[in-house]
Amino acid sequence: MSAVVNLADKLATFEAHWSPRIVASYNGNDIMVVKVKGEFVWHSHPETDDLFLVLKGRLTIRMRDGDVTLGPGELYVVPRGIEHCPFAEEEVHMLLIEPRGTPNTGDERTAATKVAI
Amino acid sequence: MSAVVNLADKLATFEAHWSPRIVASYNGNDIMVVKVKGEFVWHSHPETDDLFLVLKGRLTIRMRDGDVTLGPGELYVVPRGIEHCPFAEEEVHMLLIEPRGTPNTGDERTAATKVAI
Repeated sequence: MSAVVNLADKLATFEAHWSPRIVASYNGNDIMVVKVKGEFVWHSHPETDDLFLVLKGRLTIRMRDGDVTLGPGELYVVPRGIEHCPFAEEEVHMLLIEPRGTPNTGDERTAATKVAI
Repeated sequence: MSAVVNLADKLATFEAHWSPRIVASYNGNDIMVVKVKGEFVWHSHPETDDLFLVLKGRLTIRMRDGDVTLGPGELYVVPRGIEHCPFAEEEVHMLLIEPRGTPNTGDERTAATKVAI
């Protein structure tokens, strides 16, 4: 039997920013939690949509045709192929879902290694 | 550009129990919110895992080899093929993810129609 995942407990186990941790698996997708602060890199994922659910803080997702800002309990799906650049003035905690093996920067050479916790 | 989804706002638009509403789409999966209370039916999904993320209240997922109970901010993935029966003594609000078209009862004849909101 798989385990109940308490998202806050998982987030309390690490401090690093922009370093997603895998907490569960769903149909070949990684369910991840991540802490972010500051600006990420502009990137896109040609083969996958990119789902963000903010748990704590306020996240801005910059896109070429306008920004969106998410608070706790708000989600947004960046469609595949759309360039975006996440930005957080203060630390943000999020849930992410991506097909297993998706590089977080859209590029395997620069992507963070995703560790299961 | 797709829209920011505020989960609480979406949940405030309906009262029906066991009637998932689609709020976003991710790689051919429906992202849904649902309100539940009482006992659902025992069922399984042979082709898909079943992800539950509790937003409010306490959900018990009965399974043949033991129950799990989830509170707010806790998620659980019922692996494909595993029989389960969700139960909530008081109303529970949840986020669900399922491949588009998955019957919530595991059986198209008894499944609720999933409406996009």
